[in-house]
Amino acid sequence: MIPSRIIETKRDGGVLAQADLESFLDGFLQGAIPDYQMAAFLMATYFRGLDTSETDVLVRAMLGSGSVLDLSWLGGPRVDKHSTGGVGDKVSLALAPLAAELGLYVPMMSGRGLAHTTGTLDKLEAFPGFRTELTLNEFQDILGRVGCAMMGQSSEIAPLDRHLYALRDVTATVPVLPLIAASIMSKKLAENLTGLVLDVKVGSAAFIPEEERALSLASAMVGIGEARGLPTVALLTAMDRPLGRAVGNALETAEAVACLRSEGPPDLRDLVLVEASEMLRAGFPEFGEAEARARAEAALASGRALERLVRLVEAQGGDPSIIGDPRRFATAPERSVVEAREAGTVLAVDPLPLGQAVVTLGGGRRRLGESIHLGVGFELALAPGDRLEKGDPLGTVHALDAAGVAAGESALRSAVRIGEGVTELRPLVSHRVSAAGVGRY
Amino acid sequence: MIPSRIIETKRDGGVLAQADLESFLDGFLQGAIPDYQMAAFLMATYFRGLDTSETDVLVRAMLGSGSVLDLSWLGGPRVDKHSTGGVGDKVSLALAPLAAELGLYVPMMSGRGLAHTTGTLDKLEAFPGFRTELTLNEFQDILGRVGCAMMGQSSEIAPLDRHLYALRDVTATVPVLPLIAASIMSKKLAENLTGLVLDVKVGSAAFIPEEERALSLASAMVGIGEARGLPTVALLTAMDRPLGRAVGNALETAEAVACLRSEGPPDLRDLVLVEASEMLRAGFPEFGEAEARARAEAALASGRALERLVRLVEAQGGDPSIIGDPRRFATAPERSVVEAREAGTVLAVDPLPLGQAVVTLGGGRRRLGESIHLGVGFELALAPGDRLEKGDPLGTVHALDAAGVAAGESALRSAVRIGEGVTELRPLVSHRVSAAGVGRY
Repeated sequence: MIPSRIIETKRDGGVLAQADLESFLDGFLQGAIPDYQMAAFLMATYFRGLDTSETDVLVRAMLGSGSVLDLSWLGGPRVDKHSTGGVGDKVSLALAPLAAELGLYVPMMSGRGLAHTTGTLDKLEAFPGFRTELTLNEFQDILGRVGCAMMGQSSEIAPLDRHLYALRDVTATVPVLPLIAASIMSKKLAENLTGLVLDVKVGSAAFIPEEERALSLASAMVGIGEARGLPTVALLTAMDRPLGRAVGNALETAEAVACLRSEGPPDLRDLVLVEASEMLRAGFPEFGEAEARARAEAALASGRALERLVRLVEAQGGDPSIIGDPRRFATAPERSVVEAREAGTVLAVDPLPLGQAVVTLGGGRRRLGESIHLGVGFELALAPGDRLEKGDPLGTVHALDAAGVAAGESALRSAVRIGEGVTELRPLVSHRVSAAGVGRY
Repeated sequence: MIPSRIIETKRDGGVLAQADLESFLDGFLQGAIPDYQMAAFLMATYFRGLDTSETDVLVRAMLGSGSVLDLSWLGGPRVDKHSTGGVGDKVSLALAPLAAELGLYVPMMSGRGLAHTTGTLDKLEAFPGFRTELTLNEFQDILGRVGCAMMGQSSEIAPLDRHLYALRDVTATVPVLPLIAASIMSKKLAENLTGLVLDVKVGSAAFIPEEERALSLASAMVGIGEARGLPTVALLTAMDRPLGRAVGNALETAEAVACLRSEGPPDLRDLVLVEASEMLRAGFPEFGEAEARARAEAALASGRALERLVRLVEAQGGDPSIIGDPRRFATAPERSVVEAREAGTVLAVDPLPLGQAVVTLGGGRRRLGESIHLGVGFELALAPGDRLEKGDPLGTVHALDAAGVAAGESALRSAVRIGEGVTELRPLVSHRVSAAGVGRY
């Protein structure tokens, strides 16, 4: 294996022999292949891609570079959900306890917020005292007792993926579909699941905005899962508007709690139920679509999923009493209601300026490792299609100071497009990708 | 200037702002931009290229990173020739003294042989004692006294080019036309020339085999030279057969000496005269094409160019007496004449297997720094278009041992294609590229 030949083959659009790619990846992990050769290779994959067999080699190398959990002792189905991330996406906080309530084990490893999207770990830390850094033993113990456990990416899982990601981040080689697919799937495969549901966002504020590319990513991930014996379903869900009404960490946590009280916005509730049903069917294939949905609705209505969240917060060192008193969630000192300057129909709510404004307001990161304020963000007073009169509220800005209020107001006004005409939105869930292929949802 | 943004812009096909590219290159030279970011950038240029303005920034950065000679004290025209390299290309050894005899100063910095092409420095070392590592002061002194001087690339010239080349070599990013053009031209511009003639090989054994790409490279280099005030002419010359009859270092040196005696193969003589005429016209624009050619022929016929070579070899520490006694050039212990197995016309002599066989025989390098044996190679007994009878010699293999003889014979047989039909060859010189544009020669 001559490293420059590997790079050259990929550069020229060839497919690498399995043994060659394995040696190249192993050499990188061991330090024998320097970063600059891997960087050239990664840029070549930006232009040439990786085929299914190459992606499989990459996934195996990532998996093999670290620990893989053995959760068979749980004795029940183990199903996780992963989202590619969007503005206002707080589904995991409600979904994990709900799925646990449905009889599934949910070993969920999540990430921090980055750029315009918030992250599950930050939202969990809105519960005072909540620990997201667990040992794998603690994680498994909580999973066994509560039915779900939520932690950050363990450094023991897929270190090759972590090294590669660090290099991709500084060499403009992040947006390569097979690399994204391998990165996500290697970490999910390490969770030793029996089923996986993927939420692939599509639309202006999605990591991959274009439907065709989002479908490609979904298919690639489903292919990887199925090839490794993990039944995987991917849903394409809308990110042409924010999910729900809350945007910003603690505000989103409170909205997820509301969802578990059968309150909160209908789109969030609907997506949580859709994904809970998919997870349930992954765990218990004997359930049909309608029965799974009915069971998910019943579990949500019973309030027991909320109790499950209380147990989870308690198990991970957090103060669960806040769940009964949401006003105690972190707040920002300044609040300002922004009012409509004209009457009309809400034609669009662009999620991107809102997500970007959360960063500006101090609630998001430009790069990993920055500290953030959990209380800032937006509570929207409307959704696309609503009819507004002049003076009606667009929403409330939560900010640290007057400058933040001004920036937030400006972002909110640029996000909400008011006029006369038809509101065109993507369906909340547009496609379902599974081993059976791509279907309209 | 955010390095990953520079890479991203190039990756997406954009044109970099001058200041950004300058900072990026300077950061690399100073060590602030790591090799892995430059490697990703270089691979992006493989797919996206560099435009004229970006290439100009690169050339300036390369030039500015090291010394630029000041040769104005010589008081006469300073003209060099550079070839992109081919099998049997020993033109420089005859051309430099001939051009000096024509009244030009020829400050020639050359390279070593690599892969299937031999290099001028190795051929010069076939003169026992010849020193190719000179200080810039020694170089200038010899240039002033003899009219020509020949040395290896000084480490003081264009260090940015050297660093970049080392990285390109191991990241499969060598074949990028603007990078090649900038690399060659930065070194030639550092020679402080008043005129430059480029020999761009085209055909199967050329660094760039395709005519269209070779023309692009020629145009790019002429553009760079003219933009920096250096009148530059590029000739496209044939590399679909070896140049001359000798292939291999010392054999080629002897053939160049023969050329200066008005002996040797006609194609070598013709190309030396063409390039000498071009150099003369570059130095003395008042000469027309016919007059320049007549002066070059007269200088060659006079034998004074050969005397000039004697003075050059002496000045650079070599033993010039070998010039009068060519049998003393390094020889290989084994010689074997290879005979035709059939009668017919020589339809083609493929230079690539011959050049590659020189490496196999121990006379060429797989990577820079390897030591080589100067005596091995081929003396061809024929040229394309010749009529052969069975048993006529194809040529003589010069090798270190019996295995070398066998490998050489095999290469020679695979190179020489005998049959019935028409021999189709490129014209020795097909195109002339200058500030006036591209013309047929």
